[in-house]
Amino acid sequence: MRDRFLKACRREPTDCTPIWFMRQAGRYMSVFRKIREKHALLTVCKTPELAAEVTLQPVARFDLDAAIIFADILLPIEPMGLHLDFVKGEGPTIFNPLRDKKDVEALKPVDPESDLRFVMEAIRTVRPSLAIPLIGFSGAPFTLASYMIEGGHSRNYIKTKQMMYGAPDAWNLLMTKLTTVLIDYLCAQVKAGADALQVFDSWIGALSTSDYCQYVLPHMKRLFTGLKKCGVPVIHFGTGTATLLKMQREAGGDVIGLDWRIPLNEGWNLVGHDVAVQGNLDPVLLFAPHAEIEKQVTEILALAENRSGHIFNLGHGILPETPEENVEAVIEWVHKKSAR
Amino acid sequence: MRDRFLKACRREPTDCTPIWFMRQAGRYMSVFRKIREKHALLTVCKTPELAAEVTLQPVARFDLDAAIIFADILLPIEPMGLHLDFVKGEGPTIFNPLRDKKDVEALKPVDPESDLRFVMEAIRTVRPSLAIPLIGFSGAPFTLASYMIEGGHSRNYIKTKQMMYGAPDAWNLLMTKLTTVLIDYLCAQVKAGADALQVFDSWIGALSTSDYCQYVLPHMKRLFTGLKKCGVPVIHFGTGTATLLKMQREAGGDVIGLDWRIPLNEGWNLVGHDVAVQGNLDPVLLFAPHAEIEKQVTEILALAENRSGHIFNLGHGILPETPEENVEAVIEWVHKKSAR
Repeated sequence: MRDRFLKACRREPTDCTPIWFMRQAGRYMSVFRKIREKHALLTVCKTPELAAEVTLQPVARFDLDAAIIFADILLPIEPMGLHLDFVKGEGPTIFNPLRDKKDVEALKPVDPESDLRFVMEAIRTVRPSLAIPLIGFSGAPFTLASYMIEGGHSRNYIKTKQMMYGAPDAWNLLMTKLTTVLIDYLCAQVKAGADALQVFDSWIGALSTSDYCQYVLPHMKRLFTGLKKCGVPVIHFGTGTATLLKMQREAGGDVIGLDWRIPLNEGWNLVGHDVAVQGNLDPVLLFAPHAEIEKQVTEILALAENRSGHIFNLGHGILPETPEENVEAVIEWVHKKSAR
Repeated sequence: MRDRFLKACRREPTDCTPIWFMRQAGRYMSVFRKIREKHALLTVCKTPELAAEVTLQPVARFDLDAAIIFADILLPIEPMGLHLDFVKGEGPTIFNPLRDKKDVEALKPVDPESDLRFVMEAIRTVRPSLAIPLIGFSGAPFTLASYMIEGGHSRNYIKTKQMMYGAPDAWNLLMTKLTTVLIDYLCAQVKAGADALQVFDSWIGALSTSDYCQYVLPHMKRLFTGLKKCGVPVIHFGTGTATLLKMQREAGGDVIGLDWRIPLNEGWNLVGHDVAVQGNLDPVLLFAPHAEIEKQVTEILALAENRSGHIFNLGHGILPETPEENVEAVIEWVHKKSAR
């Protein structure tokens, strides 16, 4: 197996900088759109053969250093009792959002091997056909809680923060339950064959440092401690996190995700050089002319200073309209320009 | 005139920390909603008597240290040739967004005294009835450009960045034209009676530091240099700016706005203590129980360490559903707890 991704997670020297893309199996690929014309998003997630097929699409097309199982960050909230669907043009919608402590108390425990069996099946299906590591993943407790309380995407997270500030008992119970579910779910993915894990705390950047410290950090510490028994590298990802990076490092993870808002060297200095980092090209750069993309790829590699422990990625998921040839070009530039 | 706001802008000692709220004349006030039931947003902006009335509503209700003229950050783009309206539930919509350099070249110069006369009239109407300073304002070039190119709010700023990266000539022409219009527009507001100015670069946090440096900073420097001749303090505001604050300081402004994501002391250290700062309570805190609001207000004041040059505010505009009594409570706490 080509192992430069796993080596970089452990900050071991590699022949060149490994690269993969968040949401690399996605709508920017014409072969993916063909599958989606016939099947709803949740159907693809819940049909192991389809999820496996879609996982392999970018691996077949591009010279990637890691695959990521096709799934959605929200999958674990369904067996907890939330009715989830993806409404066209609106993103995820939860039809019975949590309102109070009673709703939180009613959340069900999850047995990932049965309740989320389709994810494990997809991992077991895809793993043997891969010559690169496979990443399992889930949303992080805060990000999942925000969807569960708001009922979908949110701009200001008013209801989420209202529970946090106004009903801290309900909030802590919710975060505790989510953390338990996520430890089991992510460990089950490793047992099924995942070689690494990524925890997506995509919307954590909405919080102040003191709120993160009080309402999120203890749960994240428990999550990462619980994931240690899996024995695989864990990537801790968020966006808008310039002021949270130090605390995210404290929370845990072998690799800390950086978005494009912070220069890679500054981010790495903040989290410390005894941890690996992943990032951090602006996803919108993939819409720019090649000269501009190449310039910024080169800049990021220069800021990494050839240190072991840099995984090249975007600062957030690849956007649906991204030209495929630009993805191909970035991979080639990263591999060539970083060759030791 | 009660001058603690202007003194704080100049970092002079004050009897207590001044406070005002971004979007303090807004939908969270029942008297404002009554006006808006009868008149569209743009009608209120363009009818000096209505704009003046609405400007005075929060001043009559709360013990504020500054008023801000009721207007919209987008007003200057209309006379440049863009068709602007506020579509219910969608926010601002521009019906003829800019696509290319030809569209940018066709933008018209603006004479604020005639083209935006209603703003000056509103300022002239309201100024004599105020016992506190009046703030004039506008959107900043990047934030306005993003609306002009995207046609409204944007999540990823793909089209904006595509022009930035792909058509830098068009981008720089647009930013140059906007900067010229804004200098004239803001200076006209001062001439009409504004005692201070705020430049809202609300969405600048979408940019990496290197993109800010290359595509925005030169224009912002020209803007703040141009505003110096007005002779009033200028507040330079943005959100998601933790990584941009140093460059925003370099760009200019007597007061730098901080959002809630960065602890006030860290933000002030970054911009330097030879400049004033404004902020930085999370607007969503105003939905929390009083004990939690009071705790976080106290924390912010503690981080300001009784230094001259702190203006208390939210980290972004007040939200429409905010309870009025919480606004009142915050003002009282800030004044009492900061009394020297």
